[in-house]
Amino acid sequence: MTPYASVEWADGLVRVLDQRRLPHEIVYRDLVDEGDVAAAIRDMMVRGAPLIGAVAAYGLALAARRSAAATPGELLADLDRAVGMLSAARPTAVNLTWALGRVLHRTGDPSIGGVEAIKWAALDEAQRIAREDVSVNLQLGHNALPLIPDDATVIHHCNTGGLATVGVGTALGIIRAAHENGKRLHVLVDETRPRLQGARLTAWELRELGIPHTVIVDGASGHFMRTKVVDLCVVGCDRVAANGDTANKIGTYNLALVASVHRVPFYVAAPTSTIDLAIPNGEAIPIEERPAREVTHVGEEWITPKGTLVANPAFDVTPAAYITAIITEAGIAYPPYDASLAALVKRGQAGVAR
Amino acid sequence: MTPYASVEWADGLVRVLDQRRLPHEIVYRDLVDEGDVAAAIRDMMVRGAPLIGAVAAYGLALAARRSAAATPGELLADLDRAVGMLSAARPTAVNLTWALGRVLHRTGDPSIGGVEAIKWAALDEAQRIAREDVSVNLQLGHNALPLIPDDATVIHHCNTGGLATVGVGTALGIIRAAHENGKRLHVLVDETRPRLQGARLTAWELRELGIPHTVIVDGASGHFMRTKVVDLCVVGCDRVAANGDTANKIGTYNLALVASVHRVPFYVAAPTSTIDLAIPNGEAIPIEERPAREVTHVGEEWITPKGTLVANPAFDVTPAAYITAIITEAGIAYPPYDASLAALVKRGQAGVAR
Repeated sequence: MTPYASVEWADGLVRVLDQRRLPHEIVYRDLVDEGDVAAAIRDMMVRGAPLIGAVAAYGLALAARRSAAATPGELLADLDRAVGMLSAARPTAVNLTWALGRVLHRTGDPSIGGVEAIKWAALDEAQRIAREDVSVNLQLGHNALPLIPDDATVIHHCNTGGLATVGVGTALGIIRAAHENGKRLHVLVDETRPRLQGARLTAWELRELGIPHTVIVDGASGHFMRTKVVDLCVVGCDRVAANGDTANKIGTYNLALVASVHRVPFYVAAPTSTIDLAIPNGEAIPIEERPAREVTHVGEEWITPKGTLVANPAFDVTPAAYITAIITEAGIAYPPYDASLAALVKRGQAGVAR
Repeated sequence: MTPYASVEWADGLVRVLDQRRLPHEIVYRDLVDEGDVAAAIRDMMVRGAPLIGAVAAYGLALAARRSAAATPGELLADLDRAVGMLSAARPTAVNLTWALGRVLHRTGDPSIGGVEAIKWAALDEAQRIAREDVSVNLQLGHNALPLIPDDATVIHHCNTGGLATVGVGTALGIIRAAHENGKRLHVLVDETRPRLQGARLTAWELRELGIPHTVIVDGASGHFMRTKVVDLCVVGCDRVAANGDTANKIGTYNLALVASVHRVPFYVAAPTSTIDLAIPNGEAIPIEERPAREVTHVGEEWITPKGTLVANPAFDVTPAAYITAIITEAGIAYPPYDASLAALVKRGQAGVAR
């Protein structure tokens, strides 16, 4: 959690921090229906796989609340339509479909009762997802403590903190937990082109937390590993396949390869909600292509010649072979991941069921 | 050569294309003395190792022309002062000191005659350096032809074309030569943070040349190597040590490592003037640290939180082990580079002497 909540349910609407305005302005937006929520996710007003999941679940709660359905059947049909819209907002993060699936599973329970009970259940499940994210983050950070040496220099890519989640974050949650446990850390913050989540958001969160950090361009990570001591890299993820292949923000794979050559441990922080056992490997993860403008412009500054072609994959896949360990709230998975991830997902779901 | 000259001697002043305004505006600046020239190099109005060398040599010619010295001894003292100022402008590219050394060697010849003869010699040597750069570029591009397959996808980092040289360029000169020899190419242009020479300058040059290209963020190179066919990488350099270790724009080392894992050939284009046999290896190459603003801002757009610390090394060193071949105007050097580079430098100097 940053000093500013990334999302909250407020009097029948969803209030989110508009992350496109950070770090220079704190602007909250009120989302009143599932269309607003889908647009907020698509336009990256909110981003970060766990946060996308929570916000989408709230979007479904909004759809339920606003539905004029007279019968449970009509209401469930309205929810199905809302799920279609919300799940299409962004393709790569599995948390989106995971969270929508949880709400649908709950509202679809035939024993639930009438229209009002279903509406209440949708909101209750969304709030559970948000609350669980808080505790999952804390547990994940705690689990990682033995992996973080004192006096460590850490490279971090993208943003995985309070702005990417409902709680303290995943990879940044680990950094925060280590800091709060008295370990001295220095974070090299990959700026993370094209959208600069590192330079804009991670630098802001680390400043708020008082954790020493230095922003570097994405291409400089190898230079620092070659010329200084870098102890570890830690990143988040948008989807982990059953074999451990991991989709995360573009630039993650380059960082993993550079770390591998330098024998720097490369850790992925993954709530079990981000692990997709239905997908055998990274080849099956859909990679979102984002608008060219993210590359051709920074803010209003037009960089490239007019008409220049751009390729802008928002994510890349890091094969499991380059990942030292995957840290979840249910424990740490080591290779071979097929077995270790399945066991942790089982344990993670048992945790939720309690 | 782009349609626009990067530098020219014009009526007693040095006219340069202000590269900070590209690709949106074509603005020429007139430099009237060595102070102007040093500032133009330091502020990256002109950049690219071979161009820096040529422009610095012209700066020395300006200093000679404007000197009020009455005797050869006074004039040579004026030139020494100008060399001090010009050589301090940027530390990493060895072409700067190489070009200044050539002018000094020429003007220092005791048989040269009086003050006017020395002034003429300084200008003549600067113009020779500029002319030689044109022919060196063409020969370098020709030499590389056997290494470039038809229908090739090429990743290029930074800018190494007509804007980085007096002629057609080094690495981009190779791409141009292959294109003009009928080979089909597609260039993936690393945008090259922080100063975006790829997105701003290389994209502009490739468009002018009609060579198909796509701009990508620096962190995406591995994704494209993993998911598409990338046939080779080619980059320029600012200094090559005797053992082949190569300093080039920050991000080059990451690209070389990613190429190495994918077994994609990684070529360095290096005029022999960029090879510094006096330096045994990359550890001895000074790496320039540039102002934080290059990272915290893009144009007027302020990215990071105010007060954020930044590390901004302008170059990195790629160890020789990750370089498939070094392409010079005197031939192609393969590992082990200690022997092959020394032989090519000898041949390159013989070429100049003819």
